[in-house]
Amino acid sequence: MTFSLSRRTLLGGALGLAGLELMRPATSLAMASSLRHQPGIMLPQLPFLYFITFDLTAEKKADVADMMRAWTEAAEALMAHRPAPHLVDSGDVDGLEPASLTLTFGFGPGLFTKEGKDRYGLADRRPAPLADLPRFTGDQLVPAHTGGDVCIQSCATDPQTAFHAIRILARLADGRATPRWAQTGFSPEFGRHQTPRNLMGFKDGTIQPDIANPAVAKRVLWAAPTDEAWMQGGTYLVARIIRIALEHWDRTRTGFQEETMGRQKQSGAPIGGHHENEPLTLSQTDKDGNPVTSENAHARLAAPQENGGAELLRRSYSYDNGLSYIAERWPPWRQGNEFDAGLMFLAYQQDPRTAFTRIFERMSKFDMMNQYTTHIGSGLFACPGRLDGHYVGEELLG
Amino acid sequence: MTFSLSRRTLLGGALGLAGLELMRPATSLAMASSLRHQPGIMLPQLPFLYFITFDLTAEKKADVADMMRAWTEAAEALMAHRPAPHLVDSGDVDGLEPASLTLTFGFGPGLFTKEGKDRYGLADRRPAPLADLPRFTGDQLVPAHTGGDVCIQSCATDPQTAFHAIRILARLADGRATPRWAQTGFSPEFGRHQTPRNLMGFKDGTIQPDIANPAVAKRVLWAAPTDEAWMQGGTYLVARIIRIALEHWDRTRTGFQEETMGRQKQSGAPIGGHHENEPLTLSQTDKDGNPVTSENAHARLAAPQENGGAELLRRSYSYDNGLSYIAERWPPWRQGNEFDAGLMFLAYQQDPRTAFTRIFERMSKFDMMNQYTTHIGSGLFACPGRLDGHYVGEELLG
Repeated sequence: MTFSLSRRTLLGGALGLAGLELMRPATSLAMASSLRHQPGIMLPQLPFLYFITFDLTAEKKADVADMMRAWTEAAEALMAHRPAPHLVDSGDVDGLEPASLTLTFGFGPGLFTKEGKDRYGLADRRPAPLADLPRFTGDQLVPAHTGGDVCIQSCATDPQTAFHAIRILARLADGRATPRWAQTGFSPEFGRHQTPRNLMGFKDGTIQPDIANPAVAKRVLWAAPTDEAWMQGGTYLVARIIRIALEHWDRTRTGFQEETMGRQKQSGAPIGGHHENEPLTLSQTDKDGNPVTSENAHARLAAPQENGGAELLRRSYSYDNGLSYIAERWPPWRQGNEFDAGLMFLAYQQDPRTAFTRIFERMSKFDMMNQYTTHIGSGLFACPGRLDGHYVGEELLG
Repeated sequence: MTFSLSRRTLLGGALGLAGLELMRPATSLAMASSLRHQPGIMLPQLPFLYFITFDLTAEKKADVADMMRAWTEAAEALMAHRPAPHLVDSGDVDGLEPASLTLTFGFGPGLFTKEGKDRYGLADRRPAPLADLPRFTGDQLVPAHTGGDVCIQSCATDPQTAFHAIRILARLADGRATPRWAQTGFSPEFGRHQTPRNLMGFKDGTIQPDIANPAVAKRVLWAAPTDEAWMQGGTYLVARIIRIALEHWDRTRTGFQEETMGRQKQSGAPIGGHHENEPLTLSQTDKDGNPVTSENAHARLAAPQENGGAELLRRSYSYDNGLSYIAERWPPWRQGNEFDAGLMFLAYQQDPRTAFTRIFERMSKFDMMNQYTTHIGSGLFACPGRLDGHYVGEELLG
């Protein structure tokens, strides 16, 4: 713990000194000990995602450390479009153009405490913001798509490259971690400065914290200076697999879709507004005194001003897993195959307790959109910053 | 049947007259009755696939005809990047660049006979090449990913556009057909004139019939002149979901991978050869008299000269469904999550009996690659040609 405390001091200093250097993308294992963020967090996001979580099977902390060292080294090579060292590359991206690959690692609650056990002697270093998410109203989480002791977010301009990296890293996990769940995603390029549309056909991501402003990023995105030393330069990821009843949504008239969303479909403008980027019409009323944007519209319930200023950085992707069988006993027309598709919601934030959880606790109860969406998977991860020349998590595991 | 016979005569004439016109892409419902092929069959193939099959629930042939008319009309609009008529578009591709969408329709055996019943009075018009596929050695077909009375192949340059079209068409099927199974796929662009690599890391598609040569296409790809009148200008599709044990493959040394494939991994050249496009070394022996290309190598067993000249046009995609649980009782290390990924094999041919079935009957018994691959889904479809101004299948259903 002495090491941890002195490290905290060091990191606090590094943070202060590094300043704008924090925005520098990770490219190589340099010698200097400047602190940097992991790639794959800042915007813009790349069009393809492979997200995977693992259960740790390692018996000792040193084995976890070895894996993170191997993962970091391999990630550096892969992001530089070189073959990963120490193994024979699977070769499936040989000849593909470099695909801007980013690899982002996170630690779930199970690294610290699993089934009540402090497996690796790390329980007292679990950061407070990594508190287990509560059970939200309407949650239908499937254990096979929930949790994980470690996660990797792989993003690229093509899906084969994103998957290739995960295959390599999964091999390097051998004997120390086993895959738990995975979800791919896509978010095609809608053109420069255009907000992409998700599968509901609405623009998704209009309101984002202005993380290009370092003061905003420091307040909203990056771990607080008072957080654990090993989390300095890091952030917290909430992942939710949100299945959308597309058949139901597609049969809903556009006017009701817009009321549900709290925005106009074509333009993305607020209800009663004209432009995508103008403020939401949260306080306006119509001639009968009713709110222009419904009390339970999605955009209202998500808005920072309705949540005590709570904000998070969304990096969501659409997902599409083909079909799956819906089998309710009643009504009979609800039996049959439906699209197994929706939103792979990924959000980064300084503290999920005051960001995702704060926002979603109310949303899960009241959002009109809950008629169409079901959260079927979930994960919570601490994504540490990184000192140049160190592997991801070295300040925790080393 | 009189109508059918006169139609056959007409089509025979049209085929003869149309000549090179057959290669013209489908763009609009024109007035002239020239015969054309469906889009999505000729090469090159687009990078993203959404493949879906449906079970027909329509009670009458006229209902199937109505659906095919609506599907054809919607497909024309969608391929021209216009909203489909008669419904409110889901809007999820508004603002995306046109994505070269192609939509290809096929009829499965169940349109003609289902559970022994001639539901639509079409049993005697079932084409001979649409004979049920035999059960092949090693088949582990999952009913939920096998069969289908109708199929749609949707290809595009982005996955959202490919899926968008399927959503529209599935809505138009309402009350007449229900989704049975679906599989997405990808095949990124490896550069002009480069053969793409599949997830095994080998080039896939080096040997293809030269369908740019009309004589070859006529012999290999398009329905024979002696086939049913309504199949003139059409072709037959065999779809197989081939799961690849990627973890196992990735742990196999490259030399054995190459022996299994019958090709070199990096260059794609035959064993003992130097260039991807040189002939396979099927008759060469080494100094000990052993064949240079193993007797049971994949490339040998697939080669036309080892199959009495049998050929088919492959249009395969890699697929990636995340993870799924493998639970064999023994050995215990085979229990756990593995990548649920592999090859969505799509092949077009004049007659599956003398093409896919002929080739795969031997391959399924002897191919060294069977150690790594399992066929878990299957479909067989007749994809008719189309007369200008007619809907797909009108010569059968009209």
